[in-house]
Amino acid sequence: MRAAIMRGGRLVVDEITDPEPREGQLLVGTRACGICGSDLHALAHGPEFVSLTRELIDSDPTSPLKPEVMDLSLDVVMGHEFCAEVLECGPGTTRRPGELVVSVPFAFDAGGMHQVGYDNVYPGGYGELMVLNDLLALPVPNGLQPEWAALTEPMAVGEHAAALSGIGPRDAAVVFGCGPVGLAVVAALARRQVEVIVAADFSPARRALALRMGAVEAVDPRTEPALAAWRRIDPSAATRSIVLFEAVGVPGMIDEAMTAAPRRSRIVVVGVCMQPDTIRPLMGVGKELSMQFAFGYEPDEFAATLHAIAEGELAVEPLITGRVGIEGVPGAFEALADPEAHAKILVLPP
Amino acid sequence: MRAAIMRGGRLVVDEITDPEPREGQLLVGTRACGICGSDLHALAHGPEFVSLTRELIDSDPTSPLKPEVMDLSLDVVMGHEFCAEVLECGPGTTRRPGELVVSVPFAFDAGGMHQVGYDNVYPGGYGELMVLNDLLALPVPNGLQPEWAALTEPMAVGEHAAALSGIGPRDAAVVFGCGPVGLAVVAALARRQVEVIVAADFSPARRALALRMGAVEAVDPRTEPALAAWRRIDPSAATRSIVLFEAVGVPGMIDEAMTAAPRRSRIVVVGVCMQPDTIRPLMGVGKELSMQFAFGYEPDEFAATLHAIAEGELAVEPLITGRVGIEGVPGAFEALADPEAHAKILVLPP
Repeated sequence: MRAAIMRGGRLVVDEITDPEPREGQLLVGTRACGICGSDLHALAHGPEFVSLTRELIDSDPTSPLKPEVMDLSLDVVMGHEFCAEVLECGPGTTRRPGELVVSVPFAFDAGGMHQVGYDNVYPGGYGELMVLNDLLALPVPNGLQPEWAALTEPMAVGEHAAALSGIGPRDAAVVFGCGPVGLAVVAALARRQVEVIVAADFSPARRALALRMGAVEAVDPRTEPALAAWRRIDPSAATRSIVLFEAVGVPGMIDEAMTAAPRRSRIVVVGVCMQPDTIRPLMGVGKELSMQFAFGYEPDEFAATLHAIAEGELAVEPLITGRVGIEGVPGAFEALADPEAHAKILVLPP
Repeated sequence: MRAAIMRGGRLVVDEITDPEPREGQLLVGTRACGICGSDLHALAHGPEFVSLTRELIDSDPTSPLKPEVMDLSLDVVMGHEFCAEVLECGPGTTRRPGELVVSVPFAFDAGGMHQVGYDNVYPGGYGELMVLNDLLALPVPNGLQPEWAALTEPMAVGEHAAALSGIGPRDAAVVFGCGPVGLAVVAALARRQVEVIVAADFSPARRALALRMGAVEAVDPRTEPALAAWRRIDPSAATRSIVLFEAVGVPGMIDEAMTAAPRRSRIVVVGVCMQPDTIRPLMGVGKELSMQFAFGYEPDEFAATLHAIAEGELAVEPLITGRVGIEGVPGAFEALADPEAHAKILVLPP
C-alpha cells in the first residue's frame, strides 16, 4: 500500500507491505485521518519521544497497560485519528465489508498491545490500509461523514479532560491554548453547559474558532491575561469556582497557569509538554492548588463523543482547515507550524 | 523583652520593645515554641522568601487572605509553633491570666492581617512575649503540658494534608521524607487507620521515628525505593489505591514522586520547596496523575489536632529531640542541619 512513513527521522511517501488481519481483526481502508500535534513532535524529536515513552511505561511496573514501544530504525506509519471502511473481516469478527468504523487507536494480538500510529506492526491512518480489532471498532452512525467521524479521537480528548476536571455548569473555565486540544476542551465544556468559558491564544484565527466552539470570550494573553478577562466579564468571578485547562503543552505554561490560578482552584493539564519543565512549587503550595493531568479518554467516552458528533452536539466542521492526500502529508506537517493557517488537517487517501 | 531576632540576615539575641495588646487581643508569655524548617529557610534565603511570598499574594488578586509581608530591614521575631500563657487581657477578651493557650499563627487588627512569626509588628515564639487575638486563641485542655501543646501547629499540617488527600483506611500511603512534616503526615495517617504506611528517609533516626509514629515500613530510598518496599510488603499492592506524600521539599522530589507514582494515583505535595523545580509533565500526563498541593490547615483542623494530642491520639513526645532557651536559638538553627540528631527542637523561654 501507499503510505506516508516516518523513516530515519523523516517523513517519506512510499509503497510498503499491506498489513494483514488476524483472528478477531479487520482490514480497513483509511477514509480520513487527522494530523495530531503529537505526530509533529514524534517526527521532530523521535528518540526523545521513544525514550520518554519507555521510561513512562517502566515507571509503573504493576500497570496492565504495557504497549509495545516503536523502534525508530524501522518504518512507522503514524495517524491515530481515523475513520475507515471495513474491507476484509478476519475470523471471528462481527463487522461487514463496506461499513464505516472508528476505533480507539489500540490493537492487540497474541503478541501484545500496540499503539496504532506509533508502532512498527500496526500502521496508522497516514497509509491506505490499517488493521483494527473488531472488539474495539465502533460502527459510524448512519449518515455521519468520515471526515467528521475522524474527529472523534481529538474531540474525545476534550470530553475526557472536561469529565476528569469535575467541572459543573456553574463553574467558570479558562482554557489556555486554542489548538485542536484546547478547542476540543472548549467544545466539551460548552456541551456540559459551563456558563463561563474564556479561551486564550496568540492566534486571531484560533481565537475565532474558540468562540465558534462555545467560548464566551477569547483573548490574546499578550494583551489581557485570561484570568483578568474572566474577572472582567464575569460578575460572579469573586465567588465562582474556576478550572484552568492548560492545553498549550510547551515549557513554562504549567507555571504560568499556577501563577494565574486563584487559591484552591484546579488546573487540568491536557496539553502534552514533552520537555522537562520548570514550576515554582511554592505557587502550588501557597494557594493549595490541585493539578489533574489528563491524557486520552476511556472507551466509553470515545463512543459517547462519536455519538455526540453524529447528533450535532459537537460541531466539528469548523476545526477542519485543510485536506491532503497521502502525498501531501509531509507538506501538511510543515503547514501545521503556522497556527494562523490551520487547526486540523485531514489526510484523505484516494 | 528578650528575643532571638532575625536582623540583617542573621539571628541575634537581644532586648526589644515589648509588644502591646489592643482591643480583642491578649499579651501572652511564650512557654514553648518549636523551630520550623521554614524558619531556617527564611533566615538563609530571606529576600527570596519575601519576594516569593509577595508574588504568591499578588498572583491571587481576589483572595481575601492578604497578610502583611515582613520587611527584612526591620527586626523579625520568628516562631509560629507555640504554646503560651495569658499574662494580660486587652478590652473585649474572654480568656484569663494564667490560662495556657495555643493559636493559629495569625493576628489581625484594624491595620490588617499579620503572620505571627513572619512579621515586623507581631513577634513569634522565639521571644518572651507575644500578642495574640482572643478570637483565635484556644485554651489548652487541662493537664496537657505546654511542650506537647506547642506541637499542635506542625501536627495540624499533617492532619490537613491527610484530610485533603481524600485517603481512606483501605488505601496505601507512601511518605517521602521523615522530617517533622513527614512525621506529622505519618501520625495523621495512622490516626485515620490507614493500613499500609511506608515512609522513606535517608536518616536511620528519622526512619525509627516514622515507625514509632505509625509507619509499618521505613526504608532508605538509596537501598530500596519506597514504592518497591510497598509492593514487597503489601499483598494487595496490585489492586490497592495509593497516595504519595511528598514531604521533603527540595528540588527534584516532585519529579521523583511523579516517576514513582502508579497510574491514576494521587500525589500530595506538603513539603515546601522554595526553589524553582523541574518536572517532566509527560510523567503526569501519561499516568494521569493528580497532584494536590497542601499548606497549613483550617482552624477546625488545628483545634481537632490540639484535642487529639490532649487525648493521647497523637503521640508527639518522640518528636521532641532538643530544648533550648532563647539564647540557644541560633545554635539550635545550626544543629537542625543534622537530620540524624534532631526532629523538633523546642524553645523554652525562662
